[in-house]
Amino acid sequence: MTHAIVLIEAERDAMAQLGGRLAEVEGVGQVYSVTGAWDFVVIVHLARHEQLAEVVTAGIGQVDGVARTQTMVAFEAFSRHDLEALFSVGQ
Amino acid sequence: MTHAIVLIEAERDAMAQLGGRLAEVEGVGQVYSVTGAWDFVVIVHLARHEQLAEVVTAGIGQVDGVARTQTMVAFEAFSRHDLEALFSVGQ
Amino acid sequence: MTHAIVLIEAERDAMAQLGGRLAEVEGVGQVYSVTGAWDFVVIVHLARHEQLAEVVTAGIGQVDGVARTQTMVAFEAFSRHDLEALFSVGQ
Amino acid sequence: MTHAIVLIEAERDAMAQLGGRLAEVEGVGQVYSVTGAWDFVVIVHLARHEQLAEVVTAGIGQVDGVARTQTMVAFEAFSRHDLEALFSVGQ
Amino acid sequence: MTHAIVLIEAERDAMAQLGGRLAEVEGVGQVYSVTGAWDFVVIVHLARHEQLAEVVTAGIGQVDGVARTQTMVAFEAFSRHDLEALFSVGQ
Amino acid sequence: MTHAIVLIEAERDAMAQLGGRLAEVEGVGQVYSVTGAWDFVVIVHLARHEQLAEVVTAGIGQVDGVARTQTMVAFEAFSRHDLEALFSVGQ
Amino acid sequence: MTHAIVLIEAERDAMAQLGGRLAEVEGVGQVYSVTGAWDFVVIVHLARHEQLAEVVTAGIGQVDGVARTQTMVAFEAFSRHDLEALFSVGQ
Amino acid sequence: MTHAIVLIEAERDAMAQLGGRLAEVEGVGQVYSVTGAWDFVVIVHLARHEQLAEVVTAGIGQVDGVARTQTMVAFEAFSRHDLEALFSVGQ
Amino acid sequence: MTHAIVLIEAERDAMAQLGGRLAEVEGVGQVYSVTGAWDFVVIVHLARHEQLAEVVTAGIGQVDGVARTQTMVAFEAFSRHDLEALFSVGQ
Amino acid sequence: MTHAIVLIEAERDAMAQLGGRLAEVEGVGQVYSVTGAWDFVVIVHLARHEQLAEVVTAGIGQVDGVARTQTMVAFEAFSRHDLEALFSVGQ
Repeated sequence: MTHAIVLIEAERDAMAQLGGRLAEVEGVGQVYSVTGAWDFVVIVHLARHEQLAEVVTAGIGQVDGVARTQTMVAFEAFSRHDLEALFSVGQ
Repeated sequence: MTHAIVLIEAERDAMAQLGGRLAEVEGVGQVYSVTGAWDFVVIVHLARHEQLAEVVTAGIGQVDGVARTQTMVAFEAFSRHDLEALFSVGQ
Repeated sequence: MTHAIVLIEAERDAMAQLGGRLAEVEGVGQVYSVTGAWDFVVIVHLARHEQLAEVVTAGIGQVDGVARTQTMVAFEAFSRHDLEALFSVGQ
Repeated sequence: MTHAIVLIEAERDAMAQLGGRLAEVEGVGQVYSVTGAWDFVVIVHLARHEQLAEVVTAGIGQVDGVARTQTMVAFEAFSRHDLEALFSVGQ
Repeated sequence: MTHAIVLIEAERDAMAQLGGRLAEVEGVGQVYSVTGAWDFVVIVHLARHEQLAEVVTAGIGQVDGVARTQTMVAFEAFSRHDLEALFSVGQ
Repeated sequence: MTHAIVLIEAERDAMAQLGGRLAEVEGVGQVYSVTGAWDFVVIVHLARHEQLAEVVTAGIGQVDGVARTQTMVAFEAFSRHDLEALFSVGQ
Repeated sequence: MTHAIVLIEAERDAMAQLGGRLAEVEGVGQVYSVTGAWDFVVIVHLARHEQLAEVVTAGIGQVDGVARTQTMVAFEAFSRHDLEALFSVGQ
Repeated sequence: MTHAIVLIEAERDAMAQLGGRLAEVEGVGQVYSVTGAWDFVVIVHLARHEQLAEVVTAGIGQVDGVARTQTMVAFEAFSRHDLEALFSVGQ
Repeated sequence: MTHAIVLIEAERDAMAQLGGRLAEVEGVGQVYSVTGAWDFVVIVHLARHEQLAEVVTAGIGQVDGVARTQTMVAFEAFSRHDLEALFSVGQ
Repeated sequence: MTHAIVLIEAERDAMAQLGGRLAEVEGVGQVYSVTGAWDFVVIVHLARHEQLAEVVTAGIGQVDGVARTQTMVAFEAFSRHDLEALFSVGQ
């Protein structure tokens, strides 16, 4: 499984709707509107690394109201729980 | 449920062990070693907001090998899945 | 009680009116026009954490003349005075 | 009344005690441990502007465990409540 | 006496006239066009702290051609000369 | 006359004495301890441009307690007052 | 052989096509769409240093959809493989 | 094939040897000492995404003389040449 | 002699012509289009310090295609060659 | 001819001697101690591009008292004077 964390800066007038829109993008697990310099954090869980371009660049990056994105791809994931099960259950 | 995303800068020589140590902290859901300017991203899921200080400041912040942290607390969470169920199952 | 400190960058031509407008937003305790890189600092005091999204994102963030915001949520509050009493008296 | 907001970066190992220590400094109203790039935010309320140097530079700046400070002095304060009464009651 | 140092970023096409305009604002002592990241530095000398908002926010901040300002208020002034005399002579 | 504005970051434990020490350096007109990211602002007034190296690099830069400096040299000075008279009276 | 690494920030709406366009510029070896603060990384391999201006400034810099570039020129190249052969084969 | 670009800040006294050492790490294709804010750029070519953690975090990150790293993982690669052939020939 | 180094950010579409235009400004010695975050570096050599405002602010700063400038004035110049001769020969 | 501009941050206690030392490095044309965020600017003029690594990395970078360097290599040089003649005369 490939995980990625995408930081999102929103257009000011899109703030109220953007959370819901981002959650609808295929491959997106969770979306949080957050405190701090960024407006949203999107957590992506994908079966194959090759899906990243499609989900992040073509998907999230083009959602109406997204001004800027910065993606962090996970080298490794650590948890006391079985993330593969957790997020495939979730998918 | 209160969610938080904690960005972590690690001491150089703690990189190899820090992922596992962070995953052991009570309240931590997932830990990712990541590309980019930060070294790890920790996702926290808590039943009550008041637990944040204990889990983030006293917990994560004091783990051996953590050099600097920056926390983003979630105002709201958005997902096509029931996050409460997902992360309490996970807890 | 949940406290938050919101840093505000104002549109140049809104500077004179913005302080008063921000003080009118439900949940806002004090507003200061300040020296330094930011233009205003807003202190928010809320009975429940869940009100944050409504007061900060939907409230403060949408006030006419606000160009950019950066929110810091309090983990803990410290004072020689009873802040709950102080700010509920104030509310 | 002169108000100031002081952003504080803490020494890593002083995090747990610093909130209480800062609240003890004469002229300090409220101290918050916060999310984001800074560790604490201190709100100062003073009868006279001339007290700022004593409270901020000689007081807060020298508290054991403070690594870096950045002060924002208020030009003006805005509130639906009488801040002079609120904070002199609090003093 | 309250002193403040205001860093100014100018609109490109206002550079030639802005120095003179800023020097005309009541309370402004000296204006320098400078090397470095900022375009002008304005030194303000005021009898009372309360005048800051009027001189800096309503005065300097609204001068035609000012794009961005960043104010540093003086806690204390040090000099081998009597600044009160020097700048009241100057006023 | 050549004017320069020198921004100073101080060693934490030198804050209390540094203002006075800087004011003693030949060529320094005024020293202010200030709010914001820097700790002191020093205003230098010199008869000849060639004195800058001696006053700023060899003088101010080497004062005990100075951690970092950033100098802005004035291209031009603007004032409703005669700065040459003002600052040579002051010298 | 002269090598250079050019970091590219793209216009939001050019993301999908820009990779292919950049790869067509004479002298460009590889183009990667990447995670992090930049959108693309372009690796340039040139027979003569003098070609840099033509390939980077006149070529890459003027491709439709490029918002900002930052070039790093290689002082030296290190590899277990013969880069001259590898990249002239590739050219 | 997974490609990554790793920016490296070197310890001052390791500059002369670090290029060669980095080129010896398994999975590293090319290493360039470069102009600009970073000291080296390392280009990694891997058969499987899962090797990233081992090559970047455990490999490059631990090479003696590396002070700081920042990794950009490629979503997609674009070239007029067959990069798989080019870099597997090179491997 | 007064020397200054002026860093220039160019309007994207002025890149090709700006080097030549800058070289025509009175007092400019050399102009380089460069790698890195800035686009051009201009080296100025002047007989008198007072010419700086005219050459840098009124001259270079107003050349068509200049978006942003940052000037560094030399305190002192060091060389194995006689710079006065070298640059007056050049003037 | 290859030209490069090297920005230098100095160790505090090396400021007084570093200008002279840098001017002694083979390939260095002019050294300026400067205002602003950097301490020195070094202008390098080389017959061949390949000398850059030797002069900048092995030469300038290793001079005692140099804390940090950032090099900008010139794509092109523009001047009303013959720079090749000017700087080979100077060499």
